[in-house]
Amino acid sequence: MNSAESYMTDIEAYITKLGAQARAASREISSASTADKNRALLATGDALNRSRAALMQANALDLGAGAEKGLEAALMDRLELTDARIDTMIEGLQQVASLDDPVGEISDLKYRPSGIQVGRMRVPLGVIGIIYESRPNVTVEAASLCLKSGNATILRGGSEALHSNQAIAACIIEGLQAAGLSKHIVQVLDRTDRDAVGKLITMPEYVDVIVPRGGKGLIERISNEAKVPVIKHLDGNCHLYIDDKADLEKSITVAINAKTQRYGTCCTLESLLVAEAIAADLLPALCDEYKSLKVELRGCEKTQAIVEGVTPATEEDYGTEYLAPIISIKIVAGLDEAISHINDYSSQHTDSIMTQDHNRAQRFLREVDSSSVMVNASTRFADGFEYGLGAEIGISTDKLHARGPVGLEGLTSQKFIVLGDGHIRQ
Amino acid sequence: MNSAESYMTDIEAYITKLGAQARAASREISSASTADKNRALLATGDALNRSRAALMQANALDLGAGAEKGLEAALMDRLELTDARIDTMIEGLQQVASLDDPVGEISDLKYRPSGIQVGRMRVPLGVIGIIYESRPNVTVEAASLCLKSGNATILRGGSEALHSNQAIAACIIEGLQAAGLSKHIVQVLDRTDRDAVGKLITMPEYVDVIVPRGGKGLIERISNEAKVPVIKHLDGNCHLYIDDKADLEKSITVAINAKTQRYGTCCTLESLLVAEAIAADLLPALCDEYKSLKVELRGCEKTQAIVEGVTPATEEDYGTEYLAPIISIKIVAGLDEAISHINDYSSQHTDSIMTQDHNRAQRFLREVDSSSVMVNASTRFADGFEYGLGAEIGISTDKLHARGPVGLEGLTSQKFIVLGDGHIRQ
Repeated sequence: MNSAESYMTDIEAYITKLGAQARAASREISSASTADKNRALLATGDALNRSRAALMQANALDLGAGAEKGLEAALMDRLELTDARIDTMIEGLQQVASLDDPVGEISDLKYRPSGIQVGRMRVPLGVIGIIYESRPNVTVEAASLCLKSGNATILRGGSEALHSNQAIAACIIEGLQAAGLSKHIVQVLDRTDRDAVGKLITMPEYVDVIVPRGGKGLIERISNEAKVPVIKHLDGNCHLYIDDKADLEKSITVAINAKTQRYGTCCTLESLLVAEAIAADLLPALCDEYKSLKVELRGCEKTQAIVEGVTPATEEDYGTEYLAPIISIKIVAGLDEAISHINDYSSQHTDSIMTQDHNRAQRFLREVDSSSVMVNASTRFADGFEYGLGAEIGISTDKLHARGPVGLEGLTSQKFIVLGDGHIRQ
Repeated sequence: MNSAESYMTDIEAYITKLGAQARAASREISSASTADKNRALLATGDALNRSRAALMQANALDLGAGAEKGLEAALMDRLELTDARIDTMIEGLQQVASLDDPVGEISDLKYRPSGIQVGRMRVPLGVIGIIYESRPNVTVEAASLCLKSGNATILRGGSEALHSNQAIAACIIEGLQAAGLSKHIVQVLDRTDRDAVGKLITMPEYVDVIVPRGGKGLIERISNEAKVPVIKHLDGNCHLYIDDKADLEKSITVAINAKTQRYGTCCTLESLLVAEAIAADLLPALCDEYKSLKVELRGCEKTQAIVEGVTPATEEDYGTEYLAPIISIKIVAGLDEAISHINDYSSQHTDSIMTQDHNRAQRFLREVDSSSVMVNASTRFADGFEYGLGAEIGISTDKLHARGPVGLEGLTSQKFIVLGDGHIRQ
């Protein structure tokens, strides 16, 4: 065996061992009591609180290495652990502990003509692999949601955060052990080789689902190579359609909020559609506000004819998630063209309509095929906390299983249960 | 371009065209009215009824070719269309028309502290690819369930049934057109090249989910090669555990029914676990019944010591779906060993416990990780009709999305809807 082969054998053995340990631990956590799970979450918070010095020390190693490698400022900022950020992690753990436990919930239990009762029971998925980038707080967030929903987790963070993640992992293990639970319920990889990811996403015998959190490149690579299901979120090219039956004042407020409240989120507005009949009344005032907020305007020819300082929007613009102070604008004939444009260009994340017309609102809700569809509301509401899920592990733009923000319930599925009294099939 | 390349280009162009047509048609069917969908289903039934002669003629071509190829008798039987089988297809269409339409159902609509209302709406998955083997009636069953649940379908049947499937497809197109719907909502491949399947399962831009129906080999191949999600059912190695707190008489009745009511189904009992404390009381009588029904008994050493005529069960036996008059038997210490054995050997299809003890029943329901978990009932009940789903497109042993029998609801997912009145994110 040459050294490249021996390296791969070594990685495969390491990840396989983690997988087997996770599979065994998933049985334990799937039937753990709510009280034990909450105890582990709160004890992890206590451990983080007691370990501030160790966390800072580990983080300093990562920050030092990052500075040496010349990481850009935004990445260095995301990497940094501060007292305030440790407080936020501890609060997050307390908050997940306070959420209702979804596991074991029985619904729809009904008697059938045969005499059996048939219903559904909510159960964990099993083992969840999470692959994420530099922010070390994701380690705590992801681990806590998987733990509360009864799943075992294998976490693979970014190489820049290796020491920080290991220090956080030590606190999670303390938390698990304080509740008498196996330390294999949450396992954080202590090596960040790319090949380790390759193995992790191709062992369906040990991993039931992969949740990648990070840039589009990471997510695309994982989706292409995975042999287990992936809950993924690609991009957020979100639309707002302002109908000719809309309240114009509310429309301007929502359009400004959706674009400018935060530029960098996946539910930020990227493309505005306006009904032709009200374009001349609405767009000059709305675009003045955008201009005063330094938002660059790219529009169709009709938009350019109504508003000054609009550069031409290309086909590519309509398909782009800018994540920046830029917006594309298109004037459309009405609801039909708006729905058709959205279904063609949207990334199926979040799309909203402004209208006072009930039937048009209903049609938009029904016909726009996105994970969140809104009426008279800012796209910025597409978030697990705003939706009342308590917390989210990500936002899914997939169609199967979970669409939109994925909270505890999205980390579970339902099995059938049947209750009889010696019933047999005729 | 050589001829092999030109063949592949040709296949890819054909399947891509079908995919693009299906994607466009999926928008139309996703918002079609319940009345139109039902009209198409009933009109398809009428067309089948009027086309009996043409169906028989097409079927005769397939039967002739099958006889020439020397297809075995069981396959020839599955391939044959008779008047009674056409009646059954027509009744199936009427029955799917009578089911509630799941599409558009809104649930959990609640006001949030921000003032917005957040809820969920049930929506179709989009385009469903179905790959199946020789029985031509699957063409009607699968098409009708996908249509009612608002999905477009691409169906690829077996090469043995090509002419029959094309004749059935003509009736479906008549049905769609009678309701004013696009004929691309249901498309049946008119070529059955293996490479066509390869393309169909690797175009996520056009196909949202694949449902393979057939032997384990087909399903494994598709799962390995697919680049779109697969709703699959591998095998049904189903267990019955008879606890020492069980009613022995009911246990014998259920154990006999689960094994012998039908040998060839995926919810047939394959492996029996018996608590040591009652084994000597239960097994001789139960095994006498099995023997009188010509069921071959393979058991552990303890079983062999209690019952005559039991051959030794190997490790492989405990993992085998016999689909035949054979059963493996193992005596276990009690509930813990039973659950652990089932979670190790079961194919996570259907497993049942016989017990009068409430807490043990609850533990079994919670801890056995299978798509259907039963108490005091025959495993043979694991079926879409018995569960009240109306009909099923298959039984899923996956963990994500749908577990157990998959009916109309399993062919849909839920998106979030948000209703506001000009609400913005603070």
